[in-house]
Amino acid sequence: MNAYDVIRKKRDGGRLDEDEIRGFVAGALAGEVPDYQVAAFLMAVMLRGMTSGETAALTRVMLASGRALRVDDCPGPLVDKHSTGGVGDKISIPLLPVAASCGLFVPMISGRSLGHTGGTLDKLESIPGFATALDEESIGRLVRAHGGCFAGQTADLVPADRMLYALRDATATVESVPLIVSSILSKKLAEGISGVVIDVKCGRGAFMETLADARGLAGALEAAGAAMGVLVKTLVTSMDEPLGAAVGNALEIEESIRALEGRGPADVVSLTVRLAAEMLVAGALAPSVAEGEDLARRAIDSGRALERFERIVAAQGGRIDLSAPRFGLPAAPVARIVPAAGSGYLSRLDARIVGETVRELGGGRLRREDAVDPSAGIVCLKKTGDAVSAGEPLFEIHAATAAAAEAAARRLERATGFSGEPIARPSLIID
Amino acid sequence: MNAYDVIRKKRDGGRLDEDEIRGFVAGALAGEVPDYQVAAFLMAVMLRGMTSGETAALTRVMLASGRALRVDDCPGPLVDKHSTGGVGDKISIPLLPVAASCGLFVPMISGRSLGHTGGTLDKLESIPGFATALDEESIGRLVRAHGGCFAGQTADLVPADRMLYALRDATATVESVPLIVSSILSKKLAEGISGVVIDVKCGRGAFMETLADARGLAGALEAAGAAMGVLVKTLVTSMDEPLGAAVGNALEIEESIRALEGRGPADVVSLTVRLAAEMLVAGALAPSVAEGEDLARRAIDSGRALERFERIVAAQGGRIDLSAPRFGLPAAPVARIVPAAGSGYLSRLDARIVGETVRELGGGRLRREDAVDPSAGIVCLKKTGDAVSAGEPLFEIHAATAAAAEAAARRLERATGFSGEPIARPSLIID
Repeated sequence: MNAYDVIRKKRDGGRLDEDEIRGFVAGALAGEVPDYQVAAFLMAVMLRGMTSGETAALTRVMLASGRALRVDDCPGPLVDKHSTGGVGDKISIPLLPVAASCGLFVPMISGRSLGHTGGTLDKLESIPGFATALDEESIGRLVRAHGGCFAGQTADLVPADRMLYALRDATATVESVPLIVSSILSKKLAEGISGVVIDVKCGRGAFMETLADARGLAGALEAAGAAMGVLVKTLVTSMDEPLGAAVGNALEIEESIRALEGRGPADVVSLTVRLAAEMLVAGALAPSVAEGEDLARRAIDSGRALERFERIVAAQGGRIDLSAPRFGLPAAPVARIVPAAGSGYLSRLDARIVGETVRELGGGRLRREDAVDPSAGIVCLKKTGDAVSAGEPLFEIHAATAAAAEAAARRLERATGFSGEPIARPSLIID
Repeated sequence: MNAYDVIRKKRDGGRLDEDEIRGFVAGALAGEVPDYQVAAFLMAVMLRGMTSGETAALTRVMLASGRALRVDDCPGPLVDKHSTGGVGDKISIPLLPVAASCGLFVPMISGRSLGHTGGTLDKLESIPGFATALDEESIGRLVRAHGGCFAGQTADLVPADRMLYALRDATATVESVPLIVSSILSKKLAEGISGVVIDVKCGRGAFMETLADARGLAGALEAAGAAMGVLVKTLVTSMDEPLGAAVGNALEIEESIRALEGRGPADVVSLTVRLAAEMLVAGALAPSVAEGEDLARRAIDSGRALERFERIVAAQGGRIDLSAPRFGLPAAPVARIVPAAGSGYLSRLDARIVGETVRELGGGRLRREDAVDPSAGIVCLKKTGDAVSAGEPLFEIHAATAAAAEAAARRLERATGFSGEPIARPSLIID
């Protein structure tokens, strides 16, 4: 393998074989292929693309760069879920205990907030005492004992992904479909799973803003999965408005618990149930999505999912109190209502602006090294299609200071649109 | 200027303004923009291109990164020539004294052999004692006193080009037209010239193999020159077969001297005269190319050009003896004739294979840090279109050892083709 030749081949739109990809990635990890050659390669991949065969080869090479989790001795199917990220997307949090209480084993390796999107780890860490930095052994033990856990990526899981992602992040090559696919699948496959359900978000608050791009990514994920012999099932779901009402770390945990109590927002509950059903089908614990949905709903209605959540939180050191106000989660010192300026039907609730506003409130981060405020956030009191009268509360801002709340209120003015005519509530699941 | 945003804009095919280019290049030179971001940018430019306005802006920014030569007090027009490089292309060597003896001032900053192509500096250094590592002050003094000199790039001339070129060389982005144009023009403009004639080589032995690519580069060079307000005149010339007969350092000096003596190969002499004429027109010392050619021919016929060459060589420490065999240049220990295997008309004399063979003999280099053998090389005794009888000498190989000569002879078998029908001698100047 000559690194220059690999770059040139991809630059000219050629198809790389697995030996070339392996040699290049191994050389990069060993420090023999310098960062600048990797960066040029990433830009060539970004602009020239990769076939599903090349993407699968890159995924295998990345997977082989690390040490997979050893959880294959679990007494049931190992299936995971991944989301490409959005605003208010706390689904992993209620989903894991629902799936685990139905018999699945879910070693959910999650990520952090970045830009306008939230991160499952940051949300969970708003629970006092909750630890997400788990080693491989603890992850294995928790998954075996409770059917799942919420952990950050271990250092050894897919070192090639860490290296490539850091460079992609600095070189405007994050958006490349084959690089996204190999990054997602290598990490998920390193969990030792037999199947994964991927929620590809689409819209203003998502990484993929257009339906064509989202479908392209979904197709590439399924094709690479097929090329690797692992079951990859994708859903394309809408991310034009935030998912649920709550956006912000502790606020989303609160909403997740309410969903497990059977009183969550309709979109959060229906997406949780649907994704759980897809996972149950992938794990052969349900013969159809409809029957999977029945199982998932019964796990919630019976209280088994909530009980499982409490067990997992306790096992990871977290302290929640279901009888306390806000379940004992941290609360922001300032809460401020933003009323509607006029009357009409809410025609637009811009997920990106809401996400950016939460980030500005301290609930997210612009750079990887920034800290997040667990209590800051926004509750969207109206969703697209709702009728609103002038003066009615639209948003509830949770902020560290009155000045921050005021700035957020001004920023949110651009987040909504109104119509004189009734607006159909948009459908959540597109494909 | 945010480096990430500049990369992303070019990645998406956007047009960069001069402030963005200046900030990016200045940041890279200052070490604030890391190599890997520069590499990703270069690949984005390679695959997305640049407008002539962007190319001119990049050229200006690169030019401003260094210190231009101070030769503007010369008592005549400052005009230079550049070639994109080929095999047997020693034209700069006879051209400079011809142009200087006609009243032009030519601060010729030249390069070295790389890959299958030769380098003017390596050729001149085959002259015992000849020094090409001159500082700015020496260059200025020699140009003022003798009308020209042959020097390597000084450290301060265009530091941005050194930095970018080193990365291009490692990232398969050397072939980008806007990057080639800005590299050539920034270095030429740093010489303080008012005009430059550029010989864009086209064919098997050239960087640009197709006429379309060569014309594209020529057009981009002229457009960027126009955008910068400097006269850039291009010729597209054929580089399918080597220029002249000699390929190799000392061998090419010998042929250059013979050209100045009025007995050089027809193609070497006619291209020297044509390029000198273009330079004289660019410097307003000739009203037309035809009259410029008359002036150039008279400079050769009168012996003034040869005398000027002797003066410049002596001023740079070189020792040649026009009455000695091979002018006192180093000779290889082994000389071997390659005879023709059959009879016919020479239909092909592959410049690239000849150049690679000379490199293998030690006359060129694969890596920048390799040393070159001044005496190794090949003399092509027949050119395309010549009638050849079986057993007639085709090549004369000059080598360090008999084994090297034998390997070269075998390699040269692939360099020629024969036809039973007469072949028209190809025309040298295409555009």
